Amino acid sequence: MKSLAIALLLAAQTAAQIEADAPPAAWAPIAADDLVAFETARGRVVVQLAPAFAPAHVAAIRALVRAHAFDGGAVVRVQDNYVVQWTARAAATAAEAGAPLAPSTGTTAAPATVAAPAAASELAAEYDRPAGGVHFAPTGSPDAYAAEAGFADGWPVARSGGRLWPVHCYGMVGAGRDNPPSTGDGSELYAVIGHAPRHLDRNLAVVGRVVAGIEAMAALPRGTEALGFYKTVAERTPITRATLASDLPAATRPRFEVMRTDTRDFAAYLEAKTNRREPFFVRPAGRVDVCNMRIPVRPAG
Amino acid sequence: MKSLAIALLLAAQTAAQIEADAPPAAWAPIAADDLVAFETARGRVVVQLAPAFAPAHVAAIRALVRAHAFDGGAVVRVQDNYVVQWTARAAATAAEAGAPLAPSTGTTAAPATVAAPAAASELAAEYDRPAGGVHFAPTGSPDAYAAEAGFADGWPVARSGGRLWPVHCYGMVGAGRDNPPSTGDGSELYAVIGHAPRHLDRNLAVVGRVVAGIEAMAALPRGTEALGFYKTVAERTPITRATLASDLPAATRPRFEVMRTDTRDFAAYLEAKTNRREPFFVRPAGRVDVCNMRIPVRPAG
Repeated sequence: MKSLAIALLLAAQTAAQIEADAPPAAWAPIAADDLVAFETARGRVVVQLAPAFAPAHVAAIRALVRAHAFDGGAVVRVQDNYVVQWTARAAATAAEAGAPLAPSTGTTAAPATVAAPAAASELAAEYDRPAGGVHFAPTGSPDAYAAEAGFADGWPVARSGGRLWPVHCYGMVGAGRDNPPSTGDGSELYAVIGHAPRHLDRNLAVVGRVVAGIEAMAALPRGTEALGFYKTVAERTPITRATLASDLPAATRPRFEVMRTDTRDFAAYLEAKTNRREPFFVRPAGRVDVCNMRIPVRPAG
Repeated sequence: MKSLAIALLLAAQTAAQIEADAPPAAWAPIAADDLVAFETARGRVVVQLAPAFAPAHVAAIRALVRAHAFDGGAVVRVQDNYVVQWTARAAATAAEAGAPLAPSTGTTAAPATVAAPAAASELAAEYDRPAGGVHFAPTGSPDAYAAEAGFADGWPVARSGGRLWPVHCYGMVGAGRDNPPSTGDGSELYAVIGHAPRHLDRNLAVVGRVVAGIEAMAALPRGTEALGFYKTVAERTPITRATLASDLPAATRPRFEVMRTDTRDFAAYLEAKTNRREPFFVRPAGRVDVCNMRIPVRPAG
């Protein structure tokens, strides 16, 4: 009877309590080689790269960062309820020199590059991967776009027909591209700042997520040109420097850890997000959408 | 053979083309009594009220607007990937006089009132309604939160067990409330500015949606207090005046029309959003999430 009482007590915890109480083993540090710090006129934006999903794109982005290709770049596009997009210096400079800011493909549906590719040339279309080799924790709720949605190795994902892919939740980062056969080269990146544009899943390479600074990017003025591109260079947010955390001195190096998604703590967190028991709720949903549930990420000591 | 060719040609249209080509009969004007123009320091924000879903709340909001209760109000809360919240003058003034800006209920999950209720007292919990009496166009795709999701009388909705309710998509407006038994009185309103917080469905009264000005609200600086409340009065965005369109002179009256959701044009639009055929896409989803598909709304002549 006492163990039942304890179990019920634990079951009554909110997601916030479970997150706060999770032991160190429930968290995984993010490798310094997987963190890029973009210093912008609106503060530091830190992106966690996702080599498990887009290894070639991640390698290209690391190379671009180490070659200082993003230093002097800029945020060139902010489309309401969709994406913030930023470019390496080459694309930003081309636009300043008179090249069109907006793409000419006529699509109103998705991000696209604004200038010629930089260092890396054609990359593989890393839009999904085999479902094996990663731990998959299903949400247990239906998904509009796939047979199953859930979490794999700390990322929101979907799974169907033996394939698995990261999904375009709020804050996720992808590699912009032009129309096919372009696959993006990592010199154009976008972050989701609205309702998850899940129609982009498996159509672009998801290369990571913003772990700090998204609230400043999401509050940028929207661009008034087609697709939310800025009309003038003056409207852009400059990127002064981008650096891999592993190349920064220890004192200024960003450190983050993410809640592991293969633990009992995460299962309890997921259950609490599904069956909200905060006193505010009169009718807890008993369901959860994979993108309506933040995977906890926090600064590490 | 020719009619098949024409059918295939029509089927090849994009959603943008279908929207542009829809005949006048595919659109419905929004009644002037259902439009509230909030004049803010960041421009005009126009909200369409939803009397079909929350008649008592809508009546209360109309009465508050006509009593000038929102004149001198303010945006007091902007929480990233969640909501913008604004209050009538009474609540705004109470906070200026030293009342806490943030609610004391401890919930981190949902909007809540920041001060005593205004004119209207306890309202019915208009969180869902009988499924009958409205035309329902299902998305045809699974929904994480309900047996079915779709569109009813121009609104995004979900349906289960004989009940139907408007869902918390981007731009939808609800009546903030304190913990139960509070149901909100319409003097605190919030608009969704992030991924659809569908866990709020059937827990709050959805009273309308923003039809103009959401991009300015979504770009406001995020509040740094708990739940995104602003720390200081200076951070708020003042509301100078709120007026029902029906009380405005014809010359300055906002006029909008919404695409009807009970037509063949809308069915084609929904199909095109499901099976994207813009050249950008290499793998159209063949599915659509009810909140990842804007119902067309446009200024009317």
